[in-house]
Formats: sequence, structure tokens, C-alpha cells
Amino acid sequence: MSDVVEQQVERGVQGKKIVLLVMDGLGGLPHPSSGKTELESARTPNLDALAGRGSLGMTVMVREGVTPGSGPGHLSLFGYDPLRFVIGRGALSALGVGLELEGGDVAARLNLATFDGAGLVVDRRAGRPSDTDAARVAARVQKEIKAPKGVTVTFVPEKEHRVVLHLRGTGLGGAALSDTDPLETGRPALAIEAHDEASRVTAEIVTDLLEQARRILGDEPRMNGFLARGFAAFERLPGMDERFGLKGAALAKYPMYRGVARLVGMTVPAVPSSTEDTVTQLEKCWGEPDLYFLHFKDTDTKGHDGDFDGKVAAIEAVDALVPRISALDPAVIIVTGDHSTPAVYREHSWHHVPVLLASQWGRPTAREFGESSCRAGDLGLIHATDLIPLALAHAGRLVKYGA
Amino acid sequence: MSDVVEQQVERGVQGKKIVLLVMDGLGGLPHPSSGKTELESARTPNLDALAGRGSLGMTVMVREGVTPGSGPGHLSLFGYDPLRFVIGRGALSALGVGLELEGGDVAARLNLATFDGAGLVVDRRAGRPSDTDAARVAARVQKEIKAPKGVTVTFVPEKEHRVVLHLRGTGLGGAALSDTDPLETGRPALAIEAHDEASRVTAEIVTDLLEQARRILGDEPRMNGFLARGFAAFERLPGMDERFGLKGAALAKYPMYRGVARLVGMTVPAVPSSTEDTVTQLEKCWGEPDLYFLHFKDTDTKGHDGDFDGKVAAIEAVDALVPRISALDPAVIIVTGDHSTPAVYREHSWHHVPVLLASQWGRPTAREFGESSCRAGDLGLIHATDLIPLALAHAGRLVKYGA
Repeated sequence: MSDVVEQQVERGVQGKKIVLLVMDGLGGLPHPSSGKTELESARTPNLDALAGRGSLGMTVMVREGVTPGSGPGHLSLFGYDPLRFVIGRGALSALGVGLELEGGDVAARLNLATFDGAGLVVDRRAGRPSDTDAARVAARVQKEIKAPKGVTVTFVPEKEHRVVLHLRGTGLGGAALSDTDPLETGRPALAIEAHDEASRVTAEIVTDLLEQARRILGDEPRMNGFLARGFAAFERLPGMDERFGLKGAALAKYPMYRGVARLVGMTVPAVPSSTEDTVTQLEKCWGEPDLYFLHFKDTDTKGHDGDFDGKVAAIEAVDALVPRISALDPAVIIVTGDHSTPAVYREHSWHHVPVLLASQWGRPTAREFGESSCRAGDLGLIHATDLIPLALAHAGRLVKYGA
Repeated sequence: MSDVVEQQVERGVQGKKIVLLVMDGLGGLPHPSSGKTELESARTPNLDALAGRGSLGMTVMVREGVTPGSGPGHLSLFGYDPLRFVIGRGALSALGVGLELEGGDVAARLNLATFDGAGLVVDRRAGRPSDTDAARVAARVQKEIKAPKGVTVTFVPEKEHRVVLHLRGTGLGGAALSDTDPLETGRPALAIEAHDEASRVTAEIVTDLLEQARRILGDEPRMNGFLARGFAAFERLPGMDERFGLKGAALAKYPMYRGVARLVGMTVPAVPSSTEDTVTQLEKCWGEPDLYFLHFKDTDTKGHDGDFDGKVAAIEAVDALVPRISALDPAVIIVTGDHSTPAVYREHSWHHVPVLLASQWGRPTAREFGESSCRAGDLGLIHATDLIPLALAHAGRLVKYGA
């Protein structure tokens, strides 16, 4: 619980800036021949120098054994335990497919499903279509659907049979809605029920949209309708400024990360066009914000590709930019990931994530940034939500607790 | 949570004594030239020998990033999570300025403030006076105030504009009182309201005292009154005997530490006159108590002074006394601090605190007591409230949990 931290936050501190540099999926597993992880294999003279004056550690992103998606992973890094600050699976999915949510938006997770002529569910996942097939069908619905007045409607394919439905507009109500998935085959889809008065109008809108989709997809052999599996209205979380006294700025090329950052009240001063441009934009916007969140995606992408050397190169590309960040003289630089994406595993994983916290008040233990050095580091094994409290402490932004 | 520990406590155990040796502010940061902390720089042959047969570790005192005052730090060492066993900020402040609280006492945090002729608050902190100026004004009030019958009234300057008001006596009631700070300037102080019947008499007493203070300070240009910012009645916590089956004895030269020890039911058999006398008094009172809390202040004082070598010497002075403690043959000796006060930082800090637990059942990992060896120690990184449970276990004072 970070409540005690929030109570000790000193407001209105000038300077003492914090950079949170996230290499997506940074954590790795040993290469079969060298025994070294991607981070340990990379030549990172600049990160190693930061390690030499900072503190190293390992983080648990959510809970032991839990593999985080990028949404929960980033929430943790921002100091929001995703199990405490629940934003709804629909909203997380919407962020996950790159939708930038605003207050009042409604998101739903849909499954493409197979219905028979009598309207009974034959396959709740439509035979697990390929991403390509599902995208074609989602695009078909998107093209032909008629949105109700004052509401924009977006269908975005997620993965296989999973599709995100996103609604925005003044015509919308709440999202306290029941699912339509009957959870077994041989039964019809359930009717959507509104759990409160404010959600009735949304229930009507979604019921109509799902009926339209059934008609549009009437000639599809398998993917001929949707089941709704989780509605969420998007509400902004208490902001980092309110909780931690930090005005945040997000520099991220990909929309999902800007979305999660907006969720906690960060501004988005610019959208970087490349790895290098991320730091150029940092230099341009340096000043007003207290916290600068930099997101680098390539490490995760190469991990998913199983491209060990590519991930190493992506780390080295970020390392080369570190001197420009240090030149801005932040009080604290945190370098870490939002989860592990080991190239040999090719997916997000549950493994602890290495973290480097560079500050004047570090307890250095190694001149190297890697899983091995982090495991023996001074920070120990901590929860990722402790990083912002630690950054606040190192930046002199917390007062003493008790006399 | 230590509830399971309390349930496993074996009552009435004879012998198997525990010494809790606290060097205040023990944790440090590396010296810029040697790279070694104060504890690592000190020659501590006796502590190193204890390490060679004990277990080492690192502790979080409150929460990651949170810098503890001495009150919360010691509560944690005694097995009381300060976020769970809340003793009120007024009481913490009173302990912090060295007042020894008794059950039924009332403490309040006051701000010196500036009022205009119409009684409106012009400056809620009276221009942040120096400690010396504030002490002069507090002494003036103390001298001229007329205490109500059956109540002793004490004003103690804390820091800058902060003053602690301490009330004791049979004429007092509860302390469920509202603050008088209007939280913005241009408004009068708020009237004190009692939240329960028992606190009405206290409300009247404090209202009168604050009015008296306004008259006494009428000719002061800036510090011409107080705002009350937090009342707390002092209630003893459930004692260590009740919770852990430990009759505790505190040997501490400074009143604050005796105060916190009394709070958890320890007795105070003597007040040591010096570092060495602390152990002499230990030898004298050895017998009845199960737990002996020894407090050594110089490490913290030298840390605050930025005197690295002085802190090293303070550690060495304690080390020299260790053989006399070992000669008493306690089952467990814990050596640790209540927080870090790195000499290079000159203040309490949030850094993990090294701990040494010497017992017959240790898992030794190094023949050296220092941050580096503790970081790699068998205890790992634990919360400080786990030390008493571990001491109980090593002393054979806990029964098995479950069959």
C-alpha cells in the first residue's frame, strides 16, 4: 500500500526531475550457448556507468508467477497496483489494441462466435480463427455497421477470435451491463441487462449493434456473430499529480503506452517517430513536467520474434541515447521494463524484471546492468509499485514519516 | 502480519533471552573515496565474529521509499507495524521531542502563526521562524500560561514553526478534537469541536490555552498565536508481553527511545549515562526481563553532523562492548538500526538497514557485518517487524504452526 507514501509527498517541489525509461519486455532468459541474457549480452557502457553510481534490483510486476500484459505492467511502474486500481478488462483490452480512451468511453471485449440457424451458439470462439481472418471480419462489420446518433463505434481485432468494441459519444450511458456469453454451446446468446438506470441506453445501443453484426455476418460460415464478455466504462484513475505530486509527460511511439500514461494523468507533449526521436522530444519538452516516461518498444518486438541478437541491438540503441538523458541532469533515472519478453520464450513472461535506479544517493554494487547484477543489488526484490516511492525518496520529494 | 506469530508464542519460557541492540541511524552510504559505508569502514572484530555464527539481512523499516522518524522506526523494530499500530501524530511528535507519555496524556501539534488585528490568519507558519526564534516564543508562552486546575501544560518547540503541546492530569478528557487551522489565510482560526462527550472538557481547556497564548504573544510581530493541527490521546499499545510473551527492559540514554519502549510495555530499569554505562546497566538488570533493548544514539548524531569518521568511531565504541553482552549468554542478539542516517546524506533516509541476528541456529554467510554482506545474507530483504518473530523463533519461544 502506498498510502503512507502519498501522505509524505512534498508538494510544489521545483526541479528534482525523474526519468522513467522503460524498455518494453526488457527482462530476458539466458542464451543457450553463452548463458547470458539479452541485457547481459548487450554492450551498454552508458547504462553500466549509471549502475556504477546507482542502485540495482529486481521487481515483481503484479504477483509472483503472473505474466503481465503491457497495461498492468505499466500501471505497476507508474505506482498503481493493477489489482487495486482496476480499470476493467474491456478498457485494458482497448488500451491494448491502441485505442486512446477518454473519460466516458465504453469498451467491451467481444468473442467472434458461431451461431446456428436457430440462433444457438455452436462454437463460442468461432473455431479460433487466425488473426488475419478475424481482422477481415471485424473490418467488414466496421464498414457496414450503422452507429446510433451521437456515438462513434469502433471494432478492433485483438487476437484470434477476440475483438474490442469501443464506443464514444454524448449518446452513451454507463457500462454496468451483463455479458451475452452463455458460457456453453447449444444455448442462445443472453440478453444484455443494465445493472443501473444510467446504463440502460448503453444496453439498447449494444444490443442493436450486436444484432446488426449478426445480419452483416449472416453469410459467414463460422464467424457469424459476437458474444460480449466484459463491459467497462473508462474512468480516469486518481492522477500521479494528485497521488505523488508528479506532473508526468509521456513520450511513447505506440498509442497503447500513451493511453496508459493518460490514464494516470500524464500529458503527451509529442509522439516520437523513432527510438532516437524519443530523446529529441524529451530534450524539447524538458522543463515543466516532474516525471518523464520514455517508452521503447523494440526490445519487446524482438523478444516476440525470438530474435535474441535483435533484442540485444535494441538495448544497445537505447544505451547510446543515455548520455543525452543524463545531460539534462535529472535527479533520478530509472531504467527497467514493464515485464520480461525473453527471446528464447517469444512471449511476455512472469520472470522478475531488472531495474536500475541512478541517483546521487545510490548504493552501487556493480558496474554492470544485467539480471545477475540486479539480483544482487541493493534494492533487493521489490514490487514494481515501489519504484515511484523510491524515485520520490531519491529525488527529495518525500518528507520524513513520524518524528 | 504477525498474528500467526502471536498465536504460536510459548508463554512462561525461562531463560532464552533476547538482546536487541540498536545503533540509531546505523545504515549508511558509501564514502566517496573508499566506496565503503560507515559500518563497512569500521573495525568491528566482535560484531564480525557474531556475523560468523549468525544470520545477516536487510530490512525495510516502514515501506519502500519511506524515511522513518525514530518513533516509527523503533515501533517496527519492536514488532509493531507503525501503519497498523497508529499512535497519533501528536503523540509521535511528543515522543519526538523527548516527552515521556503516560496513558491519558493528550498531545497536539501546533503551528506558530501570524494573526492580524481582526483575528484573521495572515501566515499559517509565521514566516517559518528559525528554531531559536520559535524556542524563545514557546518559552515565553510556557512561562506565562496559567494551566487549568489538575492539568500540567507543556509547550515544547519542535522545528521551525512547529510546537508540541502536551497535557497531563486528572482534569483532562479525551482528545477527539477538531483542528483550528483554517488551511488558508484570510480566515480566522476555527473553533475546536469535540467529536465525543468525553473530549468536551479537553476542548474547553485547549480553547482557553490557545486564547491565553494569543494574549501572551500579542506584541510579537509575527509569531502571535498558534494553530492546532492534530490532537492525540496517548493510549498504550498492546504490550510485547501480551503479544510476544516478552517482558522487555529498555536501556536508553535519551527520553524518546524510553518513551517508545514504554509504549509497548517495556520497563526502564535504569537510565544509562553513557555508551559504556548502557552495558553496565544491562549487566545489573540481567535476569527477570526476556528482552533487553539497548539504544545507542551517537551513530545517528554523527550521521546528522555529516561526520563519517565520527560515525565509524561510534560503531567501533559499541563493537568494543559486544563481548560483555555475549558473556551474559543471551539466546539471541540482534544488532541493527532504526533507519539509515548516512553521513554523506546528513539526514534520516529510506535506505534498507543492515541487520545481524546471532544465535546458535544461524546460517552464516560472511564473517563481516556490513551493508554488502547483509545484502547477500540468509535473512534476505525483510520487513523490520519480522525481526521479533525471528528472534522468538531462534530463542525457541515459538511452537510449531499446525501439526
